[in-house]
Amino acid sequence: MQGLILKIDCPDQHGIVAKIASYVADHEANLCEFSQFTDDEHSKFFARVEIDTSDLNVSLEDFISGFKPLGQSLSASWHFREMPYQMRTAVLVTKTDHCLNEILWRTKLGEMPIKITSVIGNRDNCQKIAEQAGIPFHHINLDGDHREKGFQEIKKILSDENVELTVLARFMQILPNWFCDEYTGKIINIHHSFLPAFIGANPYRQAHERGVKLIGATCHYVTSELDGGPIIEQEVERVQHFHKPKDLMRLGRDCERDALARGIRLHVNDRTIIHQNRAIVFPD
Amino acid sequence: MQGLILKIDCPDQHGIVAKIASYVADHEANLCEFSQFTDDEHSKFFARVEIDTSDLNVSLEDFISGFKPLGQSLSASWHFREMPYQMRTAVLVTKTDHCLNEILWRTKLGEMPIKITSVIGNRDNCQKIAEQAGIPFHHINLDGDHREKGFQEIKKILSDENVELTVLARFMQILPNWFCDEYTGKIINIHHSFLPAFIGANPYRQAHERGVKLIGATCHYVTSELDGGPIIEQEVERVQHFHKPKDLMRLGRDCERDALARGIRLHVNDRTIIHQNRAIVFPD
Amino acid sequence: MQGLILKIDCPDQHGIVAKIASYVADHEANLCEFSQFTDDEHSKFFARVEIDTSDLNVSLEDFISGFKPLGQSLSASWHFREMPYQMRTAVLVTKTDHCLNEILWRTKLGEMPIKITSVIGNRDNCQKIAEQAGIPFHHINLDGDHREKGFQEIKKILSDENVELTVLARFMQILPNWFCDEYTGKIINIHHSFLPAFIGANPYRQAHERGVKLIGATCHYVTSELDGGPIIEQEVERVQHFHKPKDLMRLGRDCERDALARGIRLHVNDRTIIHQNRAIVFPD
Amino acid sequence: MQGLILKIDCPDQHGIVAKIASYVADHEANLCEFSQFTDDEHSKFFARVEIDTSDLNVSLEDFISGFKPLGQSLSASWHFREMPYQMRTAVLVTKTDHCLNEILWRTKLGEMPIKITSVIGNRDNCQKIAEQAGIPFHHINLDGDHREKGFQEIKKILSDENVELTVLARFMQILPNWFCDEYTGKIINIHHSFLPAFIGANPYRQAHERGVKLIGATCHYVTSELDGGPIIEQEVERVQHFHKPKDLMRLGRDCERDALARGIRLHVNDRTIIHQNRAIVFPD
Repeated sequence: MQGLILKIDCPDQHGIVAKIASYVADHEANLCEFSQFTDDEHSKFFARVEIDTSDLNVSLEDFISGFKPLGQSLSASWHFREMPYQMRTAVLVTKTDHCLNEILWRTKLGEMPIKITSVIGNRDNCQKIAEQAGIPFHHINLDGDHREKGFQEIKKILSDENVELTVLARFMQILPNWFCDEYTGKIINIHHSFLPAFIGANPYRQAHERGVKLIGATCHYVTSELDGGPIIEQEVERVQHFHKPKDLMRLGRDCERDALARGIRLHVNDRTIIHQNRAIVFPD
Repeated sequence: MQGLILKIDCPDQHGIVAKIASYVADHEANLCEFSQFTDDEHSKFFARVEIDTSDLNVSLEDFISGFKPLGQSLSASWHFREMPYQMRTAVLVTKTDHCLNEILWRTKLGEMPIKITSVIGNRDNCQKIAEQAGIPFHHINLDGDHREKGFQEIKKILSDENVELTVLARFMQILPNWFCDEYTGKIINIHHSFLPAFIGANPYRQAHERGVKLIGATCHYVTSELDGGPIIEQEVERVQHFHKPKDLMRLGRDCERDALARGIRLHVNDRTIIHQNRAIVFPD
Repeated sequence: MQGLILKIDCPDQHGIVAKIASYVADHEANLCEFSQFTDDEHSKFFARVEIDTSDLNVSLEDFISGFKPLGQSLSASWHFREMPYQMRTAVLVTKTDHCLNEILWRTKLGEMPIKITSVIGNRDNCQKIAEQAGIPFHHINLDGDHREKGFQEIKKILSDENVELTVLARFMQILPNWFCDEYTGKIINIHHSFLPAFIGANPYRQAHERGVKLIGATCHYVTSELDGGPIIEQEVERVQHFHKPKDLMRLGRDCERDALARGIRLHVNDRTIIHQNRAIVFPD
Repeated sequence: MQGLILKIDCPDQHGIVAKIASYVADHEANLCEFSQFTDDEHSKFFARVEIDTSDLNVSLEDFISGFKPLGQSLSASWHFREMPYQMRTAVLVTKTDHCLNEILWRTKLGEMPIKITSVIGNRDNCQKIAEQAGIPFHHINLDGDHREKGFQEIKKILSDENVELTVLARFMQILPNWFCDEYTGKIINIHHSFLPAFIGANPYRQAHERGVKLIGATCHYVTSELDGGPIIEQEVERVQHFHKPKDLMRLGRDCERDALARGIRLHVNDRTIIHQNRAIVFPD
């Protein structure tokens, strides 16, 4: 479909929907999908609007720039995205490849409108997979003293390749705070537990020791608080007493793959809006 | 909240959202929740709108009647409901009481805005439960030759008690076609299988024989096609080879209670719109 | 069925199953169900055996006492229970009644082989429900300075009524350590979160603030570590950004009812064995 | 682990467990895992026994052959498998590759002890994937008049390659009856619906038209009755009114991949026993 996605949030007041919808209708565009949420607690309005622009009576550029007075009068933050669209995405990995594989496979199938610019690894285990898929692989040393310099190199790659989204696909490194702050809302991580349970290292070992009956995975935006950013998606799987940590790892991989893939898909389709430490997610 | 729910469906065209939202805004009312679905295949628009009317600049009556020209110009079907509201609901039962219990309990807790007018049973097993809850119980004979006359009696009760919704809470009788037709979209049933699997009698026995690994329950609107009406909600539960039919019944009861309660709640909150043989369900 | 349940655990060694099964076979009893788990990490063997004793060639008493030499030679802990059986169970409550209702209803249906000896509340909100079900209600003051004395009174009731299992059905009080220690493995609690996430008070508020996409409930044995005892069962429910804490409470109630009922059922059917801080659970 | 898996079924009688376990113990072997099920309805006993043979006091061959008198005295069917083991497996495909990919990936990770002998397709879409994984690909024409001859060719391949298990990984062809009969219990299919709902072609289209709220996938053994064989595993996924058939296909793929992979894993670990039209499945 030729069209636009508008994401907008602003202080709540009467008539917002009428104003936005009228702006669209006045330009002979058509609202295909209108998703809205009003947060009473914070008096905030959030919306995602999918607009068919095939009958638009002005140019796309004029339609987008013409929204400015309305947006400003609502004290809104807003963003238009032209469809079809492929988000330029870098994937950061360490050793394990199941999340990378999942992303590659779903991208190939057209499930996720992304263009993978490169795979970046602090180990080279995933190099072959990346290259078989025709995607450049960068091996970056993050060990010991190389850590700070390594993240500077990653930043340079992201900049050179015009990356819009960075996915941590079981990237087993804690990001420097400056890196998190630089890319607020633009880094998605998969954590291999049902957060906020089992923050940090070895969550399957922790889960085994606690004897939980369900394990999970959490796809979330990265902030400088470890495993503390806004949650996009979570998946769980039932486990039993006879499952050892390695079984939890095996079963958990399925949760990780699903939760990460769905989280990315929601983000790149502009179905998420971050508000403070929570993610509003309009389902697809 | 003092307010209105508007349910509307009409042929799709440009500007519907703008027109509806502007009508609301022009009368100083506020859209609290706007849920919309466009069915491309049938070129149909469906919406549910929750409106805060505390600042309304006309009377509620004038607001509702004033919508008529707009509704007609859209060739729409629409319905306004004033909140708060309790839907007058009759519950039909036979022997088992778990679904009735669930409805009583959730109603008491305020989860479901209904007023139970009476419980109607073709057996008297549930009489005590109804009466303990302070609800009239009607015992209607539907056996053999009494069937037709019995359903006429039920119709009279529904009419006398101004019933708006009839819930079949494990009512083990097939309704006459004329009864289904009389109350289209106003009878909700719980079927104890994951429809369309295991239509008809003894679904747990059927499920056991087929050796399924998940059983379920389906809450649906009743039509004259047996177990064939629009589905509102479904629940499933994992089962294993060692579960006998009586275990499936036990585990299935949990699905039945949940699916029925959620289905009723969605209906009475006007979150469902029936279109042909499918139910559009705006989640809550 | 007339029969026995044997629960046993011992250090792992060759031939345990052969010895136990031979003991049963030598007395013309029949193994109906044999569930076994070997914990390699701790070299421990656990089993639950359901035995049909209708053809037994000795008295039940002799069969049970005759097991002693074998049990001792295995350095085992073991326990026989005669079936049919009803476990004498006290239910502790505060204000909310949904868990109590669930237990009453499932007990009445025969889903849980328990005899509810009494309901004990530090508020009287559940008194009417208990009494309608024909169950004594004890109102115990646990406020402020009365706390210690109150728990002594509860202990006396449990003793006078020969209570074997105490269920905390949304009992909003932290138990004294001495009380936990007195009834190790004999108190079951339902915590209204997916433990170990959201320990302590107001888990639904915590869950809302963290923005999780799934909420849950955890049925566990009580130990002196708050919400830290062995987990028997957990349930989760998907939630969305628009759910307020009161919606999480509503949706969570369903998890609580299910997880608690299943946990109790597993315990009273001797399907759980506590090992350190984990519960081995043989499914039913 | 060096060891054996014993699968056995026989008419129920007293003392079976004692006899089997004693046979194991008498030869200084150790029962690691004992799973048993007694089907009261059919008076049948089923078991799966995992045996550590590292301390065995006879040769493996003698242990296996020495079981014969006991097996015969129980009128049992039984089977021993030596571990570690890789089941020789052929994968049949048509156009879509997600199930094939899943099998390849999990095999590579060591989740499924199989050796993929070849991929056989009636289209060549999956040829490249197979070859990249270093697996032979056979393109067999099954169109129109070639069908019968094509299945004879497939039979020859299965025979030449000593195939023990044939997996239909979205193989869109109905097998000839003689083929089903030839490989009873040795062909596993993934059907893209929650059977027995939506048998046959286009289940996602059927599901969309019926307006179900959950879709699913079913992994089952193939018999000559279309989509009617013993079910090993089922998965479901929640869907909503706005999901079009192509969305159901997308969401369903996740169910298909999971259900098929788990079904294969259960089969190759000898955790399934077929009894009439049901599969007993000892969980892992």
